[in-house]
Amino acid sequence: MKKETFKPNFQTMREAALADYFTFLRFPSISSEEKYRPDVLKCADWLVSYLKKMGFTVDLWKGDGHPVIFASYEKAGPDQPTLLIYNHYDVQPVDPLELWETPPFEPTIKNGQVFARGAQDNKGQCFYVLLALKTLIDAQGTLPINIKLCIEGEEECGSTALTHLLQQKTKELKADYLAIVDVGTPNPTTPAINLGVRGIITMDVIATGTPHDLHSGLHGGLAYNPIHALVSLLGNCRDPSGKITIPGFYDNVRPITAEEKRSVSWEFDAENYAHMFGVNPTGGETAYPPLERNWIRPTLEINGIAGGYSGNGFKTVIPAQAIAKVSCRLVPNQDPHQIFNLLKTHFERSAPPGIQIKVVQHGEGGLPMRTSPDTPLVQACKKAYETVFQAPCKMIFDGASIPVTSALAKAAGALPVLIGLGLPDDLIHAPNEHFGIDRIEKGVLLITNVLHNLAK
Amino acid sequence: MKKETFKPNFQTMREAALADYFTFLRFPSISSEEKYRPDVLKCADWLVSYLKKMGFTVDLWKGDGHPVIFASYEKAGPDQPTLLIYNHYDVQPVDPLELWETPPFEPTIKNGQVFARGAQDNKGQCFYVLLALKTLIDAQGTLPINIKLCIEGEEECGSTALTHLLQQKTKELKADYLAIVDVGTPNPTTPAINLGVRGIITMDVIATGTPHDLHSGLHGGLAYNPIHALVSLLGNCRDPSGKITIPGFYDNVRPITAEEKRSVSWEFDAENYAHMFGVNPTGGETAYPPLERNWIRPTLEINGIAGGYSGNGFKTVIPAQAIAKVSCRLVPNQDPHQIFNLLKTHFERSAPPGIQIKVVQHGEGGLPMRTSPDTPLVQACKKAYETVFQAPCKMIFDGASIPVTSALAKAAGALPVLIGLGLPDDLIHAPNEHFGIDRIEKGVLLITNVLHNLAK
Repeated sequence: MKKETFKPNFQTMREAALADYFTFLRFPSISSEEKYRPDVLKCADWLVSYLKKMGFTVDLWKGDGHPVIFASYEKAGPDQPTLLIYNHYDVQPVDPLELWETPPFEPTIKNGQVFARGAQDNKGQCFYVLLALKTLIDAQGTLPINIKLCIEGEEECGSTALTHLLQQKTKELKADYLAIVDVGTPNPTTPAINLGVRGIITMDVIATGTPHDLHSGLHGGLAYNPIHALVSLLGNCRDPSGKITIPGFYDNVRPITAEEKRSVSWEFDAENYAHMFGVNPTGGETAYPPLERNWIRPTLEINGIAGGYSGNGFKTVIPAQAIAKVSCRLVPNQDPHQIFNLLKTHFERSAPPGIQIKVVQHGEGGLPMRTSPDTPLVQACKKAYETVFQAPCKMIFDGASIPVTSALAKAAGALPVLIGLGLPDDLIHAPNEHFGIDRIEKGVLLITNVLHNLAK
Repeated sequence: MKKETFKPNFQTMREAALADYFTFLRFPSISSEEKYRPDVLKCADWLVSYLKKMGFTVDLWKGDGHPVIFASYEKAGPDQPTLLIYNHYDVQPVDPLELWETPPFEPTIKNGQVFARGAQDNKGQCFYVLLALKTLIDAQGTLPINIKLCIEGEEECGSTALTHLLQQKTKELKADYLAIVDVGTPNPTTPAINLGVRGIITMDVIATGTPHDLHSGLHGGLAYNPIHALVSLLGNCRDPSGKITIPGFYDNVRPITAEEKRSVSWEFDAENYAHMFGVNPTGGETAYPPLERNWIRPTLEINGIAGGYSGNGFKTVIPAQAIAKVSCRLVPNQDPHQIFNLLKTHFERSAPPGIQIKVVQHGEGGLPMRTSPDTPLVQACKKAYETVFQAPCKMIFDGASIPVTSALAKAAGALPVLIGLGLPDDLIHAPNEHFGIDRIEKGVLLITNVLHNLAK
């Protein structure tokens, strides 16, 4: 017989919980920078011992990258379903460091918000999952359903190790349901379940001219400047309407379906967006409304560019090399490897005489993901959200990517969903990332309710 | 009666000369970076005391930037002409520092070449001028003509202070001739006199989107990426033939004259260029032959670009801002201020919705400069070069800029010339800049001969 929903009292656990959350945030577990490897490992070790103390059986999967933490608590018996929960303990780099108002790895509370790199993405969301499970175990001695946790250390740099491990670990990962707790709601009062994310592929585009930097007076008009080659190449990738002009880029894009039109909330408050981010939503393809541009249209984004001298003052140089960091957000049915090859061929063939263009892939990329609004898991999450928020739960998509989602759902044989309590202005991936303490409290409620709703 | 030409013996002075030259090179007198201001001042002080010891009357002109050293030695009497010699004691920045094989401010001799920032541009060339004058004074107790020296500290960042001082100092600067000793010869065995340099104007082009960096998944398709705006803007500045497409850019360009065609050496060895710089000369406007592209056609060069994350790994960010450093090399009769205004208006008006473009000028820029091959000064230099090299002296132009040249010649009321012993592969403005010790020796000979040839 199904028990009453457990009602945790956050106030009694607040102090201890924040202390643990802050310890978690203090590890500079930046996965994309080699020099932080020891910190990534220390962070993983801390999680392992935290989970062991909670009573989980914990394994540290060491693949060809940062370790994946796999933990299970399967005392609910074979009649109860198994839920696999995915989080990640790695974080984005912190530069430009000078724009942080408080140190990124020294969590600071201001107006009820915790400021730190990873405060939301994804340590904050991971932490309320752990806190919910801990609270349930502490109060009831067990969990209402069987739980498996997969917490990876490379979400921000391509999920290489986990992707490679999935084939070997299908037995361990086997679950009925998969909850990716790494997304959010459109605003603080409207709950929403995420039915899909975009895929991603990331790459470096490197333009090389001469072996050395040259003087732009002595060589200007003679040596071909690789920055010119790069800006011309990238400038020509989109037409004035924001459409990507690379032949074949949109070939496999599946148009919006009737079910997507019906079940998903497409309203977009442009004024609110401008208020929150200081700019009108003028990016992307002008032929599509804003949320279609963000959710179901692919992008080609230049995430970074560098070449020559860009410090104070001036240096009249023709640099030897210029580099751009390019990513594409992908939608059904685009394939990251196919899009990478398309771009690589296009860019490398477009090199003007005197310039060499080289395109190098980062990580494994990730497929776009879609789930149906009608699964028991989505319904359990919907009910939990409505209990916590006391408001009707919307169905949405997300423009971001959790690269491993599709492959993980497949390996686990599980129906997926994307949930979370992020907000659009949490400044994830940016300076002054933050997460509200109220959302740690809501998160504990949300997760305990999801578990209760899934229990038979 | 004119004396015999003095023949200095470099071997007897070699050790002491190199010690002084190295002291001069050890000052990191980078004029464009504020943090090096104390080093720039120390370098100026060192020069002042060096010149005083030589017997010069020295003044330190303190304008609105780094000081200008003005020194004079006018003991040759009113019958002899006055030659004003221009050099600069400031140097370019040194990054990318990791590409230097030896520290840029610790001069190192390898195969007879001195490696250091400024080894050639312009401390090496400045130093052999001083050494020639010192040697003459030491040996003969005087100089055959009247000499004024103007050694500025802002050539690499726009010559602001000197430009502003020129109007007040016309009396001090008054001279018959002006020698800008800051250029070179096409190869080690062919002497050449430079009849003109290009002008220059430098600027920052800054594209700003949102107040903060944003997540490229959550905002990709919504926020307009300022890197996209910048690459599109700059990519559209030239057509596939290398022609600058900004309306009005070429309006005032004077075509090549019959005298320029006749008196200047236009031969260009493309194979040798590829051998020296590792790349074919494919830059600039394909409609013009190489030396016309470098000498008498203007350029628009992107000397630096930066935005977003460009380190190792990847960061999926839409940055708040992207910046490009843009310079134009100008030819007769282009005006730096007019071209700046043209570009500023064009760039700022081209901002797409959601992006602000701001264009900020660096320094004062400089007019292009031309001189006639028939002046007594050019003829004196020609004879001196032919004595030193034992080969016929060519007439050439230079694609580089010495911003203050035209204005200085005007203020001094002097006929100008550009001379020097730089070589195309000295890597000035780049890592591993170097200058041959043999050229210090040749430089002493060259300058003593020029003085002798000018003396009546």
